[in-house]
Amino acid sequence: MMISIDSVSNERIKSAVKIASSNKTRRQTGMFFLEGLRLCRDAAVTGYEIDSFFVSRRAYEKFTEDADFIAEKAQHSFIVSELVENKLGVTQTSQGFYCLCRLREDFGVADIDFSGKYIALENIQDPANLGAVARTAEALGISGIIAEGGCDIYSPKAQRAAMGSLLRLPVIRCESLSDTLAFLGGNGMKLYATTPEDSAEKITLCDMTGGIVAVIGNEANGVSDEVFSLCKKVTIPMLGRAESLNASMAAAITMWEMMR
Amino acid sequence: MMISIDSVSNERIKSAVKIASSNKTRRQTGMFFLEGLRLCRDAAVTGYEIDSFFVSRRAYEKFTEDADFIAEKAQHSFIVSELVENKLGVTQTSQGFYCLCRLREDFGVADIDFSGKYIALENIQDPANLGAVARTAEALGISGIIAEGGCDIYSPKAQRAAMGSLLRLPVIRCESLSDTLAFLGGNGMKLYATTPEDSAEKITLCDMTGGIVAVIGNEANGVSDEVFSLCKKVTIPMLGRAESLNASMAAAITMWEMMR
Repeated sequence: MMISIDSVSNERIKSAVKIASSNKTRRQTGMFFLEGLRLCRDAAVTGYEIDSFFVSRRAYEKFTEDADFIAEKAQHSFIVSELVENKLGVTQTSQGFYCLCRLREDFGVADIDFSGKYIALENIQDPANLGAVARTAEALGISGIIAEGGCDIYSPKAQRAAMGSLLRLPVIRCESLSDTLAFLGGNGMKLYATTPEDSAEKITLCDMTGGIVAVIGNEANGVSDEVFSLCKKVTIPMLGRAESLNASMAAAITMWEMMR
Repeated sequence: MMISIDSVSNERIKSAVKIASSNKTRRQTGMFFLEGLRLCRDAAVTGYEIDSFFVSRRAYEKFTEDADFIAEKAQHSFIVSELVENKLGVTQTSQGFYCLCRLREDFGVADIDFSGKYIALENIQDPANLGAVARTAEALGISGIIAEGGCDIYSPKAQRAAMGSLLRLPVIRCESLSDTLAFLGGNGMKLYATTPEDSAEKITLCDMTGGIVAVIGNEANGVSDEVFSLCKKVTIPMLGRAESLNASMAAAITMWEMMR
């Protein structure tokens, strides 16, 4: 049964808005916010625990089957007014579907398959980059993402850019990327770190057999010296302006070379 | 000499806002709007005719040398108040630099080098995708972009995502992509069109020597049948979910394969 919420001062709505906008609130409440028919559906299909599902009256009429499917999986479901929808919606393309899901237990270093291919992100700041990397990683069949610092994978912007891939792909967050790399290297994985430096080995010449972790650095500062010291430096040869290859594009080409 | 503008109802400011937001107004006035220190500087360096340069007081104090450099190239330069800055700024990262530049004469099919490598975009709708493709194309040394329909290359969002590459890279707009492809194919260029279909030739097996045009289709509908009928179908082999590779990532991998 769906309960109506017409007021923007409803406590559940206020709480959802706070969870959408704050990483700290997500950690405190153990929940994250998704928006859009596809993402809400992906969460339900992937087996995330949906605490609350909100759908606008208009969206319910237009996409009844999808809404009923999600509502069936959700603990609480609500039909919301246009006012409430405007309050909840971060984007113009939310289609009137929103949900609050429970965070899953994080993946850890113990989940890493030493014969897999991983992309590691060192302090990536832009959630759109994180999302784009996840989306491409899933398409290409990458085993998972290893991440230190940077933006929150549960930010609505990262989730949107990932188009559901961040709900499915293993993301291993670590306190210290260099400790993690040292451990993985000790277990036979090849460690590569990308750089625009000409002197680095061309990525087309790298040995891409067996287990690999390839590191993409922060958007402004690249890979840190500490991480470089543990890895072989590899470079994407460029004919044009090196500064023009952004982090998610460099990651796409690196992942492609690992998998091709 | 810099003139001060403190009022948001100033005609120049109203006109700049309109040019920023409307493709039609850009065509009528023959001008486009850029925002951000780097883009304004790139326009000056690349030799675009800068009709008006606007800089906030704060930005002028912080980046005096850059502001003076751009002002020297601009026909009219203005110091604007914070109110005006808020009116002009589409993004939060504009850094207080804005300019109105004259559109250049479009590149045409006659400018295409039959031995070059081109990426063709059929009706790409998202300016962020267009900008990202241009940025990667320049980094990888692609000869130019051929585009039919879709979003405007002079939209501030496309220009921002391109980080200056759309100011430098040849973009050939055409009325009919299939007519253009037929002409280029007749002049010995290889024509490839990307598709997620498994039956298409794997992109890793394609002959990438000589002049090539590789087509990326619309975000939702892919390449049109008309264009497919002129091209060899090529595919990026995927292990994961094919739907997860977005247009700009597919373009990045395709361009990389042409150049590697």
